[in-house]
Amino acid sequence: MNTVAKRIAQHIHNLNWRDVPDNAIYWAKIGILDTIGVTLAASNEPCVRLAGSLPGTGDSFGRAFIYGRGTRTSVMDAAFVNGVASHALDFDDVNNHIGGHPSVPLVPAIFALGDDLGVSGRDALLAYIAGFETETRIGLGVNQHHYEKGWHPTATLGIFGTVAAASRLLGLDAEKTATALGIAVSLASGVKANFGTMTKPLHVGQSVRNGLMAAYLAREGFTSNLEAFEHHQGFLEVFNGEGLHDITRTFAEWGNPWNVTNPGPNIKQYPCCGSTHGAINAIIRLRTEYRLCPEDVERIEVLTTPRRLPHTNNPDPQNGLEAKFSLHYVTARALIDGTVRLADFNEGAEKDVAARSLMSKITVGIHPDMSNPDQDGYGAEVIVRTTGGRDLRARVDHDVLRGPEYPMSDAELYDKFKDCVWSTVGANNIRSLYDLLSKLEKMSNISRLSDYIERFK
Amino acid sequence: MNTVAKRIAQHIHNLNWRDVPDNAIYWAKIGILDTIGVTLAASNEPCVRLAGSLPGTGDSFGRAFIYGRGTRTSVMDAAFVNGVASHALDFDDVNNHIGGHPSVPLVPAIFALGDDLGVSGRDALLAYIAGFETETRIGLGVNQHHYEKGWHPTATLGIFGTVAAASRLLGLDAEKTATALGIAVSLASGVKANFGTMTKPLHVGQSVRNGLMAAYLAREGFTSNLEAFEHHQGFLEVFNGEGLHDITRTFAEWGNPWNVTNPGPNIKQYPCCGSTHGAINAIIRLRTEYRLCPEDVERIEVLTTPRRLPHTNNPDPQNGLEAKFSLHYVTARALIDGTVRLADFNEGAEKDVAARSLMSKITVGIHPDMSNPDQDGYGAEVIVRTTGGRDLRARVDHDVLRGPEYPMSDAELYDKFKDCVWSTVGANNIRSLYDLLSKLEKMSNISRLSDYIERFK
Repeated sequence: MNTVAKRIAQHIHNLNWRDVPDNAIYWAKIGILDTIGVTLAASNEPCVRLAGSLPGTGDSFGRAFIYGRGTRTSVMDAAFVNGVASHALDFDDVNNHIGGHPSVPLVPAIFALGDDLGVSGRDALLAYIAGFETETRIGLGVNQHHYEKGWHPTATLGIFGTVAAASRLLGLDAEKTATALGIAVSLASGVKANFGTMTKPLHVGQSVRNGLMAAYLAREGFTSNLEAFEHHQGFLEVFNGEGLHDITRTFAEWGNPWNVTNPGPNIKQYPCCGSTHGAINAIIRLRTEYRLCPEDVERIEVLTTPRRLPHTNNPDPQNGLEAKFSLHYVTARALIDGTVRLADFNEGAEKDVAARSLMSKITVGIHPDMSNPDQDGYGAEVIVRTTGGRDLRARVDHDVLRGPEYPMSDAELYDKFKDCVWSTVGANNIRSLYDLLSKLEKMSNISRLSDYIERFK
Repeated sequence: MNTVAKRIAQHIHNLNWRDVPDNAIYWAKIGILDTIGVTLAASNEPCVRLAGSLPGTGDSFGRAFIYGRGTRTSVMDAAFVNGVASHALDFDDVNNHIGGHPSVPLVPAIFALGDDLGVSGRDALLAYIAGFETETRIGLGVNQHHYEKGWHPTATLGIFGTVAAASRLLGLDAEKTATALGIAVSLASGVKANFGTMTKPLHVGQSVRNGLMAAYLAREGFTSNLEAFEHHQGFLEVFNGEGLHDITRTFAEWGNPWNVTNPGPNIKQYPCCGSTHGAINAIIRLRTEYRLCPEDVERIEVLTTPRRLPHTNNPDPQNGLEAKFSLHYVTARALIDGTVRLADFNEGAEKDVAARSLMSKITVGIHPDMSNPDQDGYGAEVIVRTTGGRDLRARVDHDVLRGPEYPMSDAELYDKFKDCVWSTVGANNIRSLYDLLSKLEKMSNISRLSDYIERFK
């Protein structure tokens, strides 16, 4: 009988390099590159250190590298700690089909297995594409209900992406891959009540670890119910509820197009609330076009949609977290520096004198063209009155998410990567690391990545 | 604000030795003793070996003992492997408030922490009683809906028992205990679709490990939402659903009486399907009263309720698992040996000539007094026609569960314990191990248990 788990497993198992178009390879590399960046950026965050200091965790012998600790251990433990790091800043990519973050369930598992097994860049990319398709297509079958109910899909759907990627790299056949998916049904966890706490990134470390465990157990002959999705006490009914899922949507047009190309991994350009990104890009455009300097400014008006404003109208942020949600602060930062960086949210950065001086000239409000309270866009317009009496305007209507529909340029991608990794690998090594990941399909052994990072640290 | 997690945490934290009546101590000891027995019995089962062989698992340095491997490692890894073992034979105790197995979420965690920290028997008993109360009272708030929906409450509610026990032994204050409960909301997992596979006992190992992780993380300052139960995207709503829980039932009469005394841990006397236990006890009664031997038997009729029969009417079981569900086989075994033992389900035991000879004389059917198809009892009557032409009858109406309402005698408890542990610790050491556990409150350091088992193995 062809159960849901078996059908998914066949898709995972059957994927070949010749099936994958170039743009799928491209977007897989972007997703991986960006995820390695945000993981390194967070590798010493408090929640990552606490997870990596759990008694016994990361202490056993192994080849898998824990970025933050700089030590090597078992695949499951390294993927757990790196998994927490990958999501610790909430700076990782997004995909609406999974209703969450598509790359963090995949990348920590792929590179931890890569360290252990020495897999090629091509196999890593195929594992990523198979995992991406699996988690997002299961998402199509259960969302948006699954997300709105309160599950954290990055974990509760992402685990099936982890299983897909791990099953491929461990060489499981379709039957054992199906068994691993069945085991994972019983390991999926994570609720949105814990958003805003350290437990949110813990969900990711935990589900990556569990997905790997499911694949390892299945490989050795562990058993599960191959009907664990469609069983009346299985994933579809228990996690979602009767009539609140449609698994035919999962299988319709599998790989056509590959989800990694549409809607793809959508990169978060700046390390602050997505609702502020429109204003940031608008002010940067004025800065570039008019060589605008802070001294030229008499006042700045930032206008956006009613949905974006309540949590970002904060003229006086008191700490780094509040600064991430302050249109005043990030707009000032973007005009001063031409970008917004991770360090702008370090302790005390929100008190910077130059920023505060500019912030006092900034007001925010609702844009007359964007006043529909139900509109879900991320548009913004910035109007600068110069000391010379001119009004300069820049308007951004694009979605905040920078994926296949609105890609970041190479320069923008590199800027983000640089900001993420410089403190870990040192300024001189950023380009070589970036180039390595940009040509991932050429690597005969992806464990070179960890070797590089280990050497540079 | 007094959240659900905080209120539960206060109950956990406030428990004192002077609050606990003698019968609570007694039943806690019975639950612990029985769980250690069934864990040792299963410590070399295939699913336990596979879980204990996961790459990196059990390899890090530590003092916590893995019974099956006979090696020591970290608390989380030992509790994980022993947790799988504790539930691997489904021979562990039962409680209707949790809707599952109350002791396995507690005992593996308590003894692994005991190995590491050297806790006293009194503290271990208090941790058990607090954990038992926590998981069963949360069960009162969400069952039977939680169970019927398809969750495996031994894991999805048991994890809160693990957190309670671990928080006490790790010395967490009420605030940190509440944080640990909040973390555990995001780690709870396990669905009934995987019943009948190795993934069922995996649920227990996993949830014990996760409960310990939650307590360790909270101790070090990790954060969670203290409203993670009542939040609209938290435990009560997401796992159960709107209107399908009543948390006031959790707090009504906490500890009055202690759930460990009523309904308490209900011990499973024989290592076969509960639906056969009535017949086993009835035939044993005839064997004892009339010194009945297999040679005296012309035929045997086993009569029980319609609910017990469909899965136990099996005159020709083909393997150990089928033998566990064969009224014919277990009734024959009980008459021949005066009990039913674990070894009776070893490979090939179901082909035993003496058993087969007697089985050919056994028929099963519905008892005329027990023919109501909706009746949920475990009653049975056995009628033996002797070769001398007499009809001997014994009827059992008691529930199969041997807890506070229908306790096992010391001799019966010892018989089960002996059957469970002899192959692990050797026949000469069973009594001393049993005596040690029977006087648990006298032990200054429960790590002596692992020392004993390690020496005996």
